[in-house]
This record gives sequence, structure tokens and C-alpha cells, in this order.
Amino acid sequence: MSLDTVLSRIDDDLPQAIERLCALLSIPSISTDPTYKPQCGKAADWLVEDLRSMGVKAEKRPTPGHPMVVGHVPGDGPHILFYGHYDVQPVDPLELWNRDPFDPAVEVTEKGRVIRGRGASDDKGQLMTFVEACRAWQQVNGSLPCRITFFFEGEEESGSPSLIPFLKENADELRADLALICDTGLFQSRTPSIMTQLRGLLGEEIVITGPGKDLHSGMYGGPSMNPIRVLTRILAGLHDDNGRVQVPHFYDDVPELPQEMAEQWKALGFDHERFLGEVGLKTPAGESDRTALEMIWSRPTAEINGIKGGYTGEGFKTVLPSRASAKVSFRLVGQQDPHALREHFRDWVRAQVPSDCKVAFHGHGASPASQMSTVHPAFEAARAVLGAEWGDEAAFTGCGGSIPVAGYFKAILGMDAMLLGWAKDDDQIHSPNEKYDVESFHKGIRSWARVLDAITR
Amino acid sequence: MSLDTVLSRIDDDLPQAIERLCALLSIPSISTDPTYKPQCGKAADWLVEDLRSMGVKAEKRPTPGHPMVVGHVPGDGPHILFYGHYDVQPVDPLELWNRDPFDPAVEVTEKGRVIRGRGASDDKGQLMTFVEACRAWQQVNGSLPCRITFFFEGEEESGSPSLIPFLKENADELRADLALICDTGLFQSRTPSIMTQLRGLLGEEIVITGPGKDLHSGMYGGPSMNPIRVLTRILAGLHDDNGRVQVPHFYDDVPELPQEMAEQWKALGFDHERFLGEVGLKTPAGESDRTALEMIWSRPTAEINGIKGGYTGEGFKTVLPSRASAKVSFRLVGQQDPHALREHFRDWVRAQVPSDCKVAFHGHGASPASQMSTVHPAFEAARAVLGAEWGDEAAFTGCGGSIPVAGYFKAILGMDAMLLGWAKDDDQIHSPNEKYDVESFHKGIRSWARVLDAITR
Repeated sequence: MSLDTVLSRIDDDLPQAIERLCALLSIPSISTDPTYKPQCGKAADWLVEDLRSMGVKAEKRPTPGHPMVVGHVPGDGPHILFYGHYDVQPVDPLELWNRDPFDPAVEVTEKGRVIRGRGASDDKGQLMTFVEACRAWQQVNGSLPCRITFFFEGEEESGSPSLIPFLKENADELRADLALICDTGLFQSRTPSIMTQLRGLLGEEIVITGPGKDLHSGMYGGPSMNPIRVLTRILAGLHDDNGRVQVPHFYDDVPELPQEMAEQWKALGFDHERFLGEVGLKTPAGESDRTALEMIWSRPTAEINGIKGGYTGEGFKTVLPSRASAKVSFRLVGQQDPHALREHFRDWVRAQVPSDCKVAFHGHGASPASQMSTVHPAFEAARAVLGAEWGDEAAFTGCGGSIPVAGYFKAILGMDAMLLGWAKDDDQIHSPNEKYDVESFHKGIRSWARVLDAITR
Repeated sequence: MSLDTVLSRIDDDLPQAIERLCALLSIPSISTDPTYKPQCGKAADWLVEDLRSMGVKAEKRPTPGHPMVVGHVPGDGPHILFYGHYDVQPVDPLELWNRDPFDPAVEVTEKGRVIRGRGASDDKGQLMTFVEACRAWQQVNGSLPCRITFFFEGEEESGSPSLIPFLKENADELRADLALICDTGLFQSRTPSIMTQLRGLLGEEIVITGPGKDLHSGMYGGPSMNPIRVLTRILAGLHDDNGRVQVPHFYDDVPELPQEMAEQWKALGFDHERFLGEVGLKTPAGESDRTALEMIWSRPTAEINGIKGGYTGEGFKTVLPSRASAKVSFRLVGQQDPHALREHFRDWVRAQVPSDCKVAFHGHGASPASQMSTVHPAFEAARAVLGAEWGDEAAFTGCGGSIPVAGYFKAILGMDAMLLGWAKDDDQIHSPNEKYDVESFHKGIRSWARVLDAITR
């Protein structure tokens, strides 16, 4: 049967698909809060049942945390692994929601119909676009177009503690030719995006200790070294006047953007004034010789995420504090090695700490950037068909944030991942009143049908 | 009768003097906590009664806060005003005290006998050294050696809100030839100090706002200006590499230390290595061309007392915060004008804030430095006799902190103040286990007798 038949089937079945999504959304599978552990299990059960209803051999697989859902469908052609996550973020502050976050419903808004509820966009709604595409395909054709493994995680919002061990223990079962991940967004409402590069992340905490106890700045101010003064001097040197990071060797393994990609990005017409204007800013603050889009997608950054020291309450206290600390993170690209950079950073800091102060470091996350190889024919195939669904041609884009699972698939299973998603910037993910446009859901399902068709043709 | 007779009387009466001090110490006159308002009144009553018992015409005078105690004794010669305060600091953390802070007693320690209890040193014990000297004098001579006004405050530990209005309303009554203030310490255990210069204080709070809301550093890190980055760059420029403050006009009204004073200070043999060593430091951190003693006593400073921004809790959050803030204080000397410097500082900060950020300021305390004129013959007279009591010659010293009352006496009543005190660095004032050495108390009483004798001879 033709793709058109599948697409028609998807259109006809949309009301039922929304009902199914709402059933899944009504399960409060908040992974960060142990109180909701049973509900996480219930969401996994729901997915297992749903997959089985369409002939997938699915089961709930235990982990030390929340269960994974794994399902297999045999078939010819490429072996695809599809990844999504069924856990959601906490909902507080609850009073800012316009409805019970776990009593989802379609609401009509000025911008169109939306499915409102926690997880509607991140990631239950997105996950179900692929499931619904498969359901329609199966109903029309009697089978799926290729061998597919469904792989749903329940700990994505709480740091995925069980993911790496699970991938290692089940590598043979999960290894496929290509992973499809649906946890990202459109570039713009008419421009789908295939994310091919995601920045890595390195987190470091610095604690500078000066005097052995808090001092009175009248008694000691002047001769006594103030650790806040030391800390601010170090952090002030993190960037030069052109926004370039000053840690030695920082740019050693940063590749230049390939000409072809640079042109594609330029063609996207990214409006940095609008992007920054929405958060009250105007001037790109990063490396002065780079475009704002490069700054987010393909350039590494250093950012001070938190700083504290001394008295920070109401009023004033003339304390000369014993210690001051800061949390600094680096977004990484290309082949930047987070572990090597951690040492370069620490050396750089240590060299600036005066003899009267001590410095201690606490390491946080260290994940390298993910660069998808777009050599796999699926990338071009998918890009070629998405325009027909959304209006504008799809773009290979970057992502400022990190989606570690893509890196794990590469490192542990040796497979590339294609990141496709239909979320919009205003979906309020992680915030009150999360929503997923009915358009995202509907066109998302249709898009997966087109992609499955294109990559198995 | 001779001074020796008064000194003998003081020696004989010491046990009773300690008993009287303990009676005053047992009244929990914590001025910062409204719960203790009645006890503040009770301490004032106790002092009124005690002064009356020695023939002083004393009364409790109401204020909008805690009462003042004012007492007058007529007499010939110079008119002296004596100031002390009867209120004390809170006692928490209570569990760190080795006894009930308001059940005072003499304890025998390795370093000698101490009077333990809240307020023993700051300032009830010190205040009573003058009262006891007057009592002995009166008992031996039948009268005091000159006209004396006793002036005790009950709000010193809570910012003295009633002091300025009270001084203004009662200026004619309180104006004297010289004020004596007993709220300071010895330079070293054998070296009494007459404090002749106290630094002023200017407090400023800076709030830098960048983006309109907290951002995700993955999504926005790079092109979006981070207010912590802006703040650290500004604060890092507060001092140059030689510790010199960089705010324009900062040193305009800073006098050089007079040669005579510089020599006297040099002779004190201040051991900065020991001073800093006690708090785990070694190298003087202020202006590199100044001695540590100058840095504390006669040089202005800039100190960051607090800083905060972004996520400062456990773990890590890759937030790019909307705002960051810092509290900065300046210790002032000479004729530095706190109000003018506030504006210079704000201008200097504003000039460094990039166009994408906003800055707001919150002003805190602004008091100029106090420089006592030592021209009044009482200064030399006092200095000449104190050595006999303590061993080493007394020194005219500076003070890194601020004792605003001395400045108010000058500004409102036009009189100089002589700051004499017998506290020691290890008295634990404002901390658990506050104590006052019996030696400080005993020799302090004798010292006042010597000073009264010297300045009225």
C-alpha cells in the first residue's frame, strides 16, 4: 500500500491517538520523586500493553531505578532503535497551572489547539508520535517496514542513572543500524530540524578558602586576603574582552564548522535579535567573531552558573568571609575531552590562587559533544521528505544543550542517532502549563511515517 | 588624699566590685531582641540606683527604644562626659557556652582569673571600671575630682537608633569639655591604647540584571550575557595588583600618616605574621607599599562582604541566571566623604555595565572616619600615667572598625573623645563564652583613677 494510505489512516485516527496520549499523560510518572515510583511502573506497563496491542513483543525490564520498556518487531531492511522517555518533570509550582497537570485535555488557544498536561511535549507526546506512526503503518500494511526495537527510559529527567549499565548489559539486544531519538524540537514552526551536533558538558565547582574563619572587615580588612576577591579575579579572567575562553588548550580540539554546514545554517535566517529579545537581551555576548547561532550550536562556552560567599541576606554585615565558591560549566564541541579540560581548568585556577588561599574542586558532569555522522543514508532520506510535511526544507542543526543518550548510543553500542522532534519553543517544558500543539502531534506522526517510508524504500 | 589611697581602696574593694559587676551581668539586657525590652529597662534601673548610691544625680531617660541613663555630679575643673553601653549581644548559639551566659562568675583559667558572662567585656565590665574608680575616689575624698556626666546607652548593639536624636535634644545638658569612652581594648596585654583614629564605613549593594529570567545555559550559553560574568569582572577591578583601590577619587582625601604617629606605631612592634597567623594567613593583602598596621588603622579599604548569583545549592544546575548581586564596603579614613564616594563608586560601576545589563544600587551605612584631636592636654596626661599601671607606655593607636558615637560627640556636641579601654583580643565579645580578665577589670579601675587624677591635677 502507499504512504498516502498510511497518512490518511493517521488523519482518521487522530482523535483516538490523542485519547491514547491523554491516557498516558494522566499517569504521574515523576521520576525524581520516590513517591511516584509506582506511577513510573504504571506508565511502563501502559506502554508495554500498548506496544503488545500492535504486535510488538514488549516487556518491562527492571533496573535499580525505574524500569525500561523494550519491545521488538522483526523485519527486513535496516534495524532501527527508537528511543523516548516516559518519565516527566515535577509539576510545582502547582498554583501556576491552569489545570491539573495530570488531567490532560485538548485546549483551544489563540495559536491553535494544544494538548495540555505534564509530559505532553517532554517526552510522552513526542514518544507517541513514533508509536502512532507504527500503529497506522501496521494497520494499513499488516506489518512494520523494517526491524524495529522500541526502547523507552523512565529516568531521563533524573539523570539516567541506570542507562549506561543497562546499555552495557543489553548491548547485543539493543544494537541497531541506526537510533531514532524523539526528544528535540522544530527549528521553527515550518522548519523541521535534524540535530546532528550536540554540545557536551563539563561542570566544576571551585571553593576558595582564605582565613580560617569569618573575620570582621573592620579588624582585618586590608591585610587579610578576601576569598571573594580572589574568586572574582579568577572568574573575571575566564573570558577575554572578545568573549574568548582563556583556559589554556580550551580550543585545541574545536573544529571549524564545515563550509557546507555554515551555509545551511546561514540559510536558516536565524534572527538573533528576536531570540535574545525574547529574554530581554540584544547583543550576542560570546566570541565576537562568531554568529549567535554558532555560539549556541558549534562553539564551546564557559558559563558561571552560580557564585556565593560571605553575607548575602537582608541588610549588611561587614564580614570578611573564610570561603567563597562558584559553579562553572563548559559546553563542549568537537573532540574536546572533558576530562583533559577539567585538568587544564584546575591548573589554570590553581596558578592564580595566592599563597594565602587554598582551593578545592568538586567535579560534576563530564560528557563529550556528540557529532552525528550524517553519512548514513537515512539522514539525507529523512531530510528530503520532511519538507513536504512542514513547508520548509528540514535543516541539519546543532543543539546548545546536551542529550547524553545520543553519545551513549555511539560510545556503547557504536550506532549513530538521528534526532528528530516536533516540539516548539513555547511548549513550556519543565514549567507550568506544559503543552504540545495538536499540530506537532499530528504532523509528527505523519513525519515518522514519511521517514520510515523514506529510509526503508 | 593621695592617688595611692584611692588605688589601695580600689584593691581592697575588688571582691565587692566584682560582685556588683556580676549583679549587672545577670540582667539579660539584649537590645536587639524585643523580648528583652523589660530587662534593658531593668539594667538601666540598676545603673541609676548604683550611681545614686554614690551621690550622683542619676535618672533613666526614655527614648523611642531603650532608655538612656544620665547622671550628673557637679565639680570644679574640666567637665568630663563618660560614655558606655549597658546593652549586650544575643547569646546564641547557647550550646557553645560553658555556662549560662547570664549566670556570671569568676572562673580560674590557664591564663588567669576571668569574669565569664555575656557583656563582661562588651561593655558592662568596661563601663563599670569607670564607675568603680569614681566610687573609690568618692569614698576616699568625699567627692569626685571634677564635674562628671555619666551617659549610658542601651542600644549600642542594635545600631543606636535613638542616639543622634537624644544627643540633639539634650545637647546643652550633655556637652562637656571632653568625652571619655570605654569600649575599646588594650593594644597588647602590657600596652594600653588611646584610640585616636577610627575608620569610617560605607556600604553598597550592587544588583546586576541581565536576561529577564533565568535561562538554560545550554540553550542560551554563549550569546546571552551572564550577570555573574559582568559582576565578577567589575569586582575583579576593585583593586589593582598592588592592592590599591581603583574607584576614581578614592584616595583624594586620604591623609598621609604624620611622621610622629608613624614612628610611634613602628615602636609598637606590631607582629603582622602573628596577627595574620592566628587566622590562618601570612601575607598582608592590602596596598603593597604599606605596613599591615597602616592597612588596618590609617588606610582606606574596599572589601567584598558578600556575593551571590545563580544556583548555589547542592549538585549542579546549568542555569544562566537573570541576576547577580554583591555587597561591598569601604573603610574610610581622613576626610573621605562617604556620600561623595558612594557616587564615585556608582559611576565607576555604571561605566562598566554592558548595554545588555541593568544595575541597581542599595545604599547601606555611610559614616566618615573619626580623627581625635590630641591637642587637649588630657591626651598626653592620660598617656603619661597609664604606663605605670600596665608596664609599657600607652600608645596613640588607630582602629580598623568604627565607633560611631565618637563621631557623633564631635559632630553634634563639638567635643573630642578619648577612647580608652582594657579589653583583650581573646575576650570573645559577640561570641560564646565572653569573658573579661579580672586583671582588665582591676587594672582598668585603677587606670581610670590615675587618668582622673592626671587630668584634674
